[in-house]
Amino acid sequence: MQQKETEISDLGEFGLIDRLTQDFPLKNPQTKMGVGDDAAILAFGEKDVVVTTDLLLEGIHFDLRYVPLQHLGYKAAIVNFSDIFAMNAIPRQITVSLGISSRFTVEHIDALYAGIRRACEIYNVDLVGGDTSASVSGLVISITCIGDVEAGKEVKRSGAKPTDIICVSGDLGAAFMGLQLLERENSIAAGQKDFQPDFAGKEYILERQLKPEARKDIIELLHNEGLTPTSMIDISDGLSSELLHICKASNVGCRVYEDKIPIDYQTALMAEEFNMNLVTAAMNGGEDYELLFTLPLTDHEKIEKLKGVSMIGYVTSPDLGLALVTRDGAEIPIKAQGWNAFNK
Amino acid sequence: MQQKETEISDLGEFGLIDRLTQDFPLKNPQTKMGVGDDAAILAFGEKDVVVTTDLLLEGIHFDLRYVPLQHLGYKAAIVNFSDIFAMNAIPRQITVSLGISSRFTVEHIDALYAGIRRACEIYNVDLVGGDTSASVSGLVISITCIGDVEAGKEVKRSGAKPTDIICVSGDLGAAFMGLQLLERENSIAAGQKDFQPDFAGKEYILERQLKPEARKDIIELLHNEGLTPTSMIDISDGLSSELLHICKASNVGCRVYEDKIPIDYQTALMAEEFNMNLVTAAMNGGEDYELLFTLPLTDHEKIEKLKGVSMIGYVTSPDLGLALVTRDGAEIPIKAQGWNAFNK
Repeated sequence: MQQKETEISDLGEFGLIDRLTQDFPLKNPQTKMGVGDDAAILAFGEKDVVVTTDLLLEGIHFDLRYVPLQHLGYKAAIVNFSDIFAMNAIPRQITVSLGISSRFTVEHIDALYAGIRRACEIYNVDLVGGDTSASVSGLVISITCIGDVEAGKEVKRSGAKPTDIICVSGDLGAAFMGLQLLERENSIAAGQKDFQPDFAGKEYILERQLKPEARKDIIELLHNEGLTPTSMIDISDGLSSELLHICKASNVGCRVYEDKIPIDYQTALMAEEFNMNLVTAAMNGGEDYELLFTLPLTDHEKIEKLKGVSMIGYVTSPDLGLALVTRDGAEIPIKAQGWNAFNK
Repeated sequence: MQQKETEISDLGEFGLIDRLTQDFPLKNPQTKMGVGDDAAILAFGEKDVVVTTDLLLEGIHFDLRYVPLQHLGYKAAIVNFSDIFAMNAIPRQITVSLGISSRFTVEHIDALYAGIRRACEIYNVDLVGGDTSASVSGLVISITCIGDVEAGKEVKRSGAKPTDIICVSGDLGAAFMGLQLLERENSIAAGQKDFQPDFAGKEYILERQLKPEARKDIIELLHNEGLTPTSMIDISDGLSSELLHICKASNVGCRVYEDKIPIDYQTALMAEEFNMNLVTAAMNGGEDYELLFTLPLTDHEKIEKLKGVSMIGYVTSPDLGLALVTRDGAEIPIKAQGWNAFNK
């Protein structure tokens, strides 16, 4: 049975906001007031407040032909949480602004919000405001996330020091290979009626692309082990790009070992099937939302015991530059080849 | 001489961000770190933190045929500051996210940012972050603003009580009439080469539309006089719409007197020229960014002395509903006819 669909204009802006925000009970005591006034009210006392924002545009950051709206909402929230965790902080509140073109119904936006709501539930984050508007073109999603951290405990990109160990959580390149798979199946599907894509055995890389998680567990693990990174960043544009950010901000160089980069077997199999260079995918793929961080060499023994964390190299003085050390010992300069929305 | 124009893709995302954010020195001690990491770091101590966000889309909220980019940037910042003032708070930081389509050059974005920078300078606000992306359609501007207020001193929409006096700053309807004028001159210009619009004697309504200000002065004035509103909102969608917000949130009714609504003579002349109802323009025009607030009846003598503040009516019990009292004493129910982006 076809579900009844509701035009956005039937509700109007305020009706839509009421509908979207009614199921977001506030969970953080720091949230004094959420949606419903000119601005939300937060109270952080002796904590430092951390703010990040992310703009997602249809046709640039996502393709609705193969991204379900619920997953898109989930991911849109997660990418912001990931930025907050990368400061060693805990996300507390988000604001969500949407530009909605006329082809979207209220049910579409409900699905998008269901994903945002699920992410907020799992990560214990409050929705405290936003703005909703018509759009003459595609869907626009702008999320701002606010977090807190004990004053002075925030970890920036700029604190890496020579001899520090470079660490990365989880594995890399899977989200990129998941995207390749989705794009291939979508282009095959375009030519055939009733085409059913075959995703068996590829669930992991698809989930990494469509429904990534932010590494709250790693922040908690580091905290529990008494480890405070000297620098940290989340991997959204690819390992190469993030290494460049850390080295530039910290004025250091680095050596990263090809054979130490963590890669899942599904990622490796998919790269082979696509005849793609696996290390390139892992270095430049992006959208992994893992954490890249540095720790003093003296923490070596503690790091070895951390589950889900790999040591991939070390920090050098700036004059040595950035290089990837291949399996045969050759050094390849690291350049950003990550995703650039402005590339022609 | 034609100025050299730079393609956005020549700079890339990070190059563009560097260029845009280089001239934003931090001014607030609460801003521990601005642009350049995963998130900005703020420290508010014993203050309450206030957050608002606003999404502006080309073709919906602005028309670049008659809005200079520098004014657009200024206004985009101002509308957010206005929301913070409407909470009785002071804006401290903003994040700016931009979606930029290929027809924009770096110089265009520089002009937009020049306006944002000017607004930040005048209102003493720090730019602390943002996101920049290509857009497949028009220009997208998403701004989030953070402010602070002494804990417990924030003014919500929900505190209005029967017998409170309803006050409004400045005058109403001018921004709306300015927009009518710009649209008329633009449609005439479309048919003629070398057409020069005649804006003489209409500078005030044009400025109200193109380069509005946020009423920081009114917040300071109220503070200096020891007056704390029981409720407050800024007038972005029109007086009718904002009165409905306050009355709904406070569970009250109101009586507003037609002959008390402050209107500038340029607004009145323009309405006559367009054969439009002046009160309708003032009640429903929107984009005035004046403050609408309520104060206890006992403050009557103090309010009378406030420069730039008009008493336009009073708050009633909810069962009396919302009404505009006309010059001949008739009561017309107040309905929201403000701007709705989703109207077909």
